[in-house]
Amino acid sequence: MYPFLRKTALLASSAITAVTLSAQTNDTRPNIILFMVDDMGWQDTSLPFADEKTPLNERYHTPNMERLASQGMMFTQAYACAVSSPTRVSLMTGMNAARHRVTNWTLEKNKSTDIKSDVLEFPEWNINGICQVPGIPSTYEVTSLSQLLKNSGYHTIHCGKAHWGAIDTPGENPHHFGFEVNTAGHAGGGLASYLGELNFGNRTDGKPSPLQAIPNLEAYWGKDIFATEALTLEAVKALEKAKNLGQPFYLYMSHYAIHIPIDKDKRFYQKYIDAGLSEKEAGYASLIEGMDKSLGDLMDWLVENDLEQNTVIIFMSDNGGLSSSAYWRDEPLHSHNAPLNSGKGSAYEGGIREPMIVKWPGKVQANTKCNSYLIIEDFFPTILDIAQVKERKTKQPIDGISFMPMLKDSSYKHNNRSFYWNYPNLWGNEGPGIGPTCTIRKGDWKLIYYYETGKKELFNITDDIGETKDLSAQNPKIVKKLSRELGKYLRNVKAQRPSFKATGKACPWPDDAP
Amino acid sequence: MYPFLRKTALLASSAITAVTLSAQTNDTRPNIILFMVDDMGWQDTSLPFADEKTPLNERYHTPNMERLASQGMMFTQAYACAVSSPTRVSLMTGMNAARHRVTNWTLEKNKSTDIKSDVLEFPEWNINGICQVPGIPSTYEVTSLSQLLKNSGYHTIHCGKAHWGAIDTPGENPHHFGFEVNTAGHAGGGLASYLGELNFGNRTDGKPSPLQAIPNLEAYWGKDIFATEALTLEAVKALEKAKNLGQPFYLYMSHYAIHIPIDKDKRFYQKYIDAGLSEKEAGYASLIEGMDKSLGDLMDWLVENDLEQNTVIIFMSDNGGLSSSAYWRDEPLHSHNAPLNSGKGSAYEGGIREPMIVKWPGKVQANTKCNSYLIIEDFFPTILDIAQVKERKTKQPIDGISFMPMLKDSSYKHNNRSFYWNYPNLWGNEGPGIGPTCTIRKGDWKLIYYYETGKKELFNITDDIGETKDLSAQNPKIVKKLSRELGKYLRNVKAQRPSFKATGKACPWPDDAP
Repeated sequence: MYPFLRKTALLASSAITAVTLSAQTNDTRPNIILFMVDDMGWQDTSLPFADEKTPLNERYHTPNMERLASQGMMFTQAYACAVSSPTRVSLMTGMNAARHRVTNWTLEKNKSTDIKSDVLEFPEWNINGICQVPGIPSTYEVTSLSQLLKNSGYHTIHCGKAHWGAIDTPGENPHHFGFEVNTAGHAGGGLASYLGELNFGNRTDGKPSPLQAIPNLEAYWGKDIFATEALTLEAVKALEKAKNLGQPFYLYMSHYAIHIPIDKDKRFYQKYIDAGLSEKEAGYASLIEGMDKSLGDLMDWLVENDLEQNTVIIFMSDNGGLSSSAYWRDEPLHSHNAPLNSGKGSAYEGGIREPMIVKWPGKVQANTKCNSYLIIEDFFPTILDIAQVKERKTKQPIDGISFMPMLKDSSYKHNNRSFYWNYPNLWGNEGPGIGPTCTIRKGDWKLIYYYETGKKELFNITDDIGETKDLSAQNPKIVKKLSRELGKYLRNVKAQRPSFKATGKACPWPDDAP
Repeated sequence: MYPFLRKTALLASSAITAVTLSAQTNDTRPNIILFMVDDMGWQDTSLPFADEKTPLNERYHTPNMERLASQGMMFTQAYACAVSSPTRVSLMTGMNAARHRVTNWTLEKNKSTDIKSDVLEFPEWNINGICQVPGIPSTYEVTSLSQLLKNSGYHTIHCGKAHWGAIDTPGENPHHFGFEVNTAGHAGGGLASYLGELNFGNRTDGKPSPLQAIPNLEAYWGKDIFATEALTLEAVKALEKAKNLGQPFYLYMSHYAIHIPIDKDKRFYQKYIDAGLSEKEAGYASLIEGMDKSLGDLMDWLVENDLEQNTVIIFMSDNGGLSSSAYWRDEPLHSHNAPLNSGKGSAYEGGIREPMIVKWPGKVQANTKCNSYLIIEDFFPTILDIAQVKERKTKQPIDGISFMPMLKDSSYKHNNRSFYWNYPNLWGNEGPGIGPTCTIRKGDWKLIYYYETGKKELFNITDDIGETKDLSAQNPKIVKKLSRELGKYLRNVKAQRPSFKATGKACPWPDDAP
């Protein structure tokens, strides 16, 4: 309410008393950028996460990931779930997917995305995702990571993909989880188009836009700009504001890249064609390098604004690279995460092992590598540790364990810890390790149990990263021990499982199967 | 993350299992719409709040306010502060302005909006407004009404003017106070233009827009639409979303209308010209009727969506009508709130008495009038009562008292309660009762104390609503008693006061002055 008459505005404003005060506050906690890439495989980078540089590392160009790794710590055994919503919900809640039951990807209210099976009936999982309030059907009510960060005084920024809750449920909107800024986050987990020329998939003829059209980027409609760049510009805008507020910030930079559709990021496409890649594969490589450019732009912004020293950057992907689609990818199927087997949607390493890097000046040693393993729900307590959040009362139990000790000492290992996955669903695409499964990793060993067939596979991940040699027949005792532990865990967290249509009976838990 | 190949999307989606579940929840608490108008005087309506219909009531047309009053309870002695930010901060915090110290309007960071005086030095009030985090200079850290509502499970929608915190401080952004939706709320308390044709004041030539350009309405830029209507359309959009979420909603419909600039709302302008009003006054009348149309549209939406019965509507204004500006208004200055004296910025009733109506089907008796008095900070506990919010822990003490008993019984009065105002600032415009003052109302009596001159005025409001007869000379005991109570209160809440430039000494409190 400015009281001045228009006429006298100039006079009045010059008469205003200027009181100059320091904008400094006592809150010196670090800023945090969680840079989350979508559908990025462990090998979709020039940065070698395997023991040696692979042909895929030679193919892709991610200079900013290399720069980030040279300033921080790489994690070679960082796990997520095999599809998006389960991973993202575990990140937001600290729960294992077996417990939160958002085991498959979400989109429409009260509609399961499970593909129908002739053999199996799938359980009533939380098809509407998570929620911040009680009483919403098919959701898990939670206190989210972002809400706790906001409550503790962080300025919370969401930019990009959310994918925690179905359309027209409270969980669809990042603002409902304590994010103070939201650009482009909604129920959708994919995108209709990367192209500003195509309004990122939004229709302007009055007809409804596809559910996966990217929201909030109207300012770029009709322009020659790629979604990755538009989101980066929006993130920088939010940071420009954030730096003045006197609060530490949490930026969840959650790219839609490198999810299909594999549109061509023209800034980088031609060089991959020139290098001999097919159109599809050059397009994919351009998606990767566009994403890497965004990382570099944010890193540059921190340097230019003198915020580099007090900002933690965490780089992560939500699941493995898409490798089961001849429509979108060239070259042999299930080879796109080599040396890992299979890709997105699979219980194999190609579906769940992620490229991860943490930079934290003065705290995390530069140019280091940590081979200890961790899983996506560990991000929840770790980020709260980084943010020094004391008030951590949550509606849900927390399964994750902070990996802060690894950040301090790359050789640190959580003693004897096991990791669990549960996917009592049917994704749709076909390929090795893709289907309704539950899985345990413990030390060198990994056991996968297929609900439909009762088949068990045992791999020594340390010796056989490609999961090519099923050692279950030779190691019945290990199979039995891991089956027991997995079954016990799943029952304990009230996990769900499919049932057989023919008999109506539930599929046996792994330790009840022969 | 939709996993389907484009090619097979149709097949896949037809195979999706449809699980139909009720979206009903157990949360039956009422929806709440707080319809807040800016700078609207007590007489800027065809609804008579005085004992009889006045010439101004004959002039203006507000059929929807009449409709609302016929379905609810009018309040004839509802008070706010004389300018915007103090009122809005009291609403958001439950504190009296003397305590929260956001005693004048806010805009730019670390800049006081006080006009310079040759005689007085003004105190360092909270020129940056309120804030949800500690440590931000010149702010009061609070737990806001909207945050408590969000925490309790309400879906919180902000549409229109905010005006709680300065630019580049956390308080500028409604999202920081727990609002999950925000359209057009920011640090600005005025507006550069109502006209879509002028992009609501936003520049498109790359040069910075005026600070008071309305944000977030890009979709209406260049179109023939008035801001009042654009905001209403956005509010309805938010309600359309809200009705599906399974939560009760709180809509803070906070119009920029009827603040200057007095642009012409073409939908209603001509009829007032035809009725013989001047251009300025016809423009003003059109602002009012455009605002009233918005109220009607929201009421219609509730009926059409079968939400009328469980929705509370509270109608209020933030301060009196602007009456001190010959540039914006025709007809004699300080007459525009008649029978009340003066207008916006004044300690007189014209500055602080507001048109207020509450509709609550089944709870508040229709077509009733309550003459008990209440003040803006009372909205805080009342709205929490309506929303049945149990968790009310706040960082700030609460001065407001719930007027729920009045809603249940229009004859209810808070026994012997006093009301206080403190304005140790200089607004700029001139007129009766405008200047650095503090004020007490107790029963029929109202005492105003002028910091600069030490002058005291005493009015019997019940007998002399127009504050034309200063009875201080005839009633020294009442003056003394009210001065003592006011001084005691101000000291108790650590209120601020100006000091004299000549001596550096603070102006006396009212009970220390002769």
